[in-house]
Amino acid sequence: MIRADHLIVGLSEVATLTSGPIPRTGPAMRKLSLIDRAAVAFDEGRFVFVGTERGARREVRVRSTGTEWDAAGAVAVPGLVDAHTHVLFAGDRHDELALKIGGASYSEIAAKGGGMYSTVEATRKASAASLLAQTDRRLARMASSGTTSLEVKSGYALTHAGELRLLELIPRIGRSLGLRVVPTFLGAHAIPREFTARADAYIDLLVRRTLPVVARRGLAAFCDVFCEPGFFSAEQSERLLSAASALGLGTKIHAEEFVVSGGAAVAARLGVRSADHLIEATETDRLALARAGVTAVLLPATPVASFTSKRSPGRELVDAGVPVALGTDLSPNSWIESMPLVLSFASYLARLTPAEALTAATVNAAHAIGLSAESGQVALGRSADLAVFDAGSVEGIGYRWGAVPVRVYRQGKLIPSR
Amino acid sequence: MIRADHLIVGLSEVATLTSGPIPRTGPAMRKLSLIDRAAVAFDEGRFVFVGTERGARREVRVRSTGTEWDAAGAVAVPGLVDAHTHVLFAGDRHDELALKIGGASYSEIAAKGGGMYSTVEATRKASAASLLAQTDRRLARMASSGTTSLEVKSGYALTHAGELRLLELIPRIGRSLGLRVVPTFLGAHAIPREFTARADAYIDLLVRRTLPVVARRGLAAFCDVFCEPGFFSAEQSERLLSAASALGLGTKIHAEEFVVSGGAAVAARLGVRSADHLIEATETDRLALARAGVTAVLLPATPVASFTSKRSPGRELVDAGVPVALGTDLSPNSWIESMPLVLSFASYLARLTPAEALTAATVNAAHAIGLSAESGQVALGRSADLAVFDAGSVEGIGYRWGAVPVRVYRQGKLIPSR
Repeated sequence: MIRADHLIVGLSEVATLTSGPIPRTGPAMRKLSLIDRAAVAFDEGRFVFVGTERGARREVRVRSTGTEWDAAGAVAVPGLVDAHTHVLFAGDRHDELALKIGGASYSEIAAKGGGMYSTVEATRKASAASLLAQTDRRLARMASSGTTSLEVKSGYALTHAGELRLLELIPRIGRSLGLRVVPTFLGAHAIPREFTARADAYIDLLVRRTLPVVARRGLAAFCDVFCEPGFFSAEQSERLLSAASALGLGTKIHAEEFVVSGGAAVAARLGVRSADHLIEATETDRLALARAGVTAVLLPATPVASFTSKRSPGRELVDAGVPVALGTDLSPNSWIESMPLVLSFASYLARLTPAEALTAATVNAAHAIGLSAESGQVALGRSADLAVFDAGSVEGIGYRWGAVPVRVYRQGKLIPSR
Repeated sequence: MIRADHLIVGLSEVATLTSGPIPRTGPAMRKLSLIDRAAVAFDEGRFVFVGTERGARREVRVRSTGTEWDAAGAVAVPGLVDAHTHVLFAGDRHDELALKIGGASYSEIAAKGGGMYSTVEATRKASAASLLAQTDRRLARMASSGTTSLEVKSGYALTHAGELRLLELIPRIGRSLGLRVVPTFLGAHAIPREFTARADAYIDLLVRRTLPVVARRGLAAFCDVFCEPGFFSAEQSERLLSAASALGLGTKIHAEEFVVSGGAAVAARLGVRSADHLIEATETDRLALARAGVTAVLLPATPVASFTSKRSPGRELVDAGVPVALGTDLSPNSWIESMPLVLSFASYLARLTPAEALTAATVNAAHAIGLSAESGQVALGRSADLAVFDAGSVEGIGYRWGAVPVRVYRQGKLIPSR
């Protein structure tokens, strides 16, 4: 008999995402591994039963202090994994929406005090308490939307001390929510104003001074860089990521978001953990990424939020054999907190099938941020992270725009609804 | 002293949407009429105080059985009004997503049992109890998203008796949630299979048999028609709407969604309450609609949900002087329940400023469905419908993709969160 502190019955379907071996070079698009008329049970924060309701009735006994919940035909998927966020910032750029609709250029907006540097200024000035409070409110909504693990990047300070301060805050965010947070060092998010026309000198600073501290103090799991004209070149990106790799950090790169920048080629050459955005990646890039086993992190809401008519090339990347993952890209430029909404964008705009999108938002996203051992699957012994939706079928989650879960469990605990 | 059963303080901003007179022919884009550091109070379901927090402290006394809530810097807008929904249906079309991504045509999908007729079949077969239960679950989520009033169309039965059955159900949906529901007769949603190549005969049936019953029994506030090649022609649409108008019903038209169909011209000629979609409307159409005072109901998520690269021409319609309203278009083809998400699509894709979008989702949407006297404004004596968001400013609601309210009040009652 299996003892459990939580038993969930009445699930019409559970996607476990456990089928097939993970290829050596990265996760492929896999079957969802559906169980019909399912039940799951957990105990002390870990799955102890995953199977049919009939099996649960035979094998599971709920502790006297435990609870049983009838999901009444709802469907369940692994707690969603958001593989790319800039959630740690102060400030707000809603004023720019009307300006952009009126046709203002980026430089006109910057001249009015807007643009990314406005949030860099706000973040630099914000107290730690204020930054944590703002960020935790976002994380609470993300959690209620079904996210149970996420990556959080630094990048809104752009100074040695400021970036270290942000990285030090990351372990403190989402703590009360029990979310699993993976820190990424993105000191190279943009060229700070203090280094205008001296990007090389800023990369020098990061390589010689900041990265060694980040690595020594274990402040980040990954180092990331924004490779794009006006930001950092392919050469500068490669120099930074090579240094990070030599210090034992994982690597990621923002590549080919606006134009062909050479970032995808750097990603393939270095074998980074993930190349993100990839909107302008060429077919050569896609094949190189596939060969190198680099995971593509797609951010399919961002082109729309950026007022472009481009779309994230999800279909093309999958067809080229690149494992794809998903993220919100939550930032002041694309303020999207809901991973289920990202599933919708992934299907309707990036043209991933619902099964591919769900794979990308769970097991593949976990791989992209180094959480494969804990997150992204409903499997015995794993952290009991589960999102339950009233959506007819697990493939119906993204079909409904921005589906809101009925319940979300994190480490076996029910996340309070808003 | 004003007695209130609810007092809300600590609002950093309230948009009342009350400024300026409503033009005779329809609502114009108006100022949001912001109140900073605001408070609102209601009593027995109606607003009794709308003003500054300082004013409320002087003038409002909360009944001993009442409650006071500190919104802690959140912002408030009128309960959102969804001016166009097909929420009353059975069935589900998520299976088509993967087929569409694979390049299947509409006729290939129909041959596999998909397409609109699959949900017509499911709706015809569904019991009243099942239809109500499914629809109420959707309405509960819509309400939690901030919607307090909505239009609901028939149109998934396409038989005389079946359409009357749907209209009879509409007053029963959302009842426990206290939502204000406006019924629209859309028997002319599509040509039923029983009338293939005999659209005129179907319009005859609706005009001679169904419409008189709808009007006599007061089953609908509006009559609507899908004017598009393959559905109903401009002539057929005009015949139906003229008959409806003669019977005292308000009129609406689905016009110019896929191609130029002549529906917008019919709308202007008849002076309908609203013309909806209008994606392919010409400049001549826009000017004619403006002159006729027809409200355009925009459904900016639908082109994306329909796998087109088109966008709803919000900017163009506003610039032509057409009053615009917003709706979700919730249907099996574009399953979107959240009006805040529609606000995002309205700005990022249809290019309405956040202020225009908020106007379109409140006071203008109320006008589009005949609820101007009750809904869409925060004003003394009106139904206390209010949506409260943690969004920095009221214009920051649509800036955040699919913002989820902190609290929603309907007729002065707190709608339970999911």
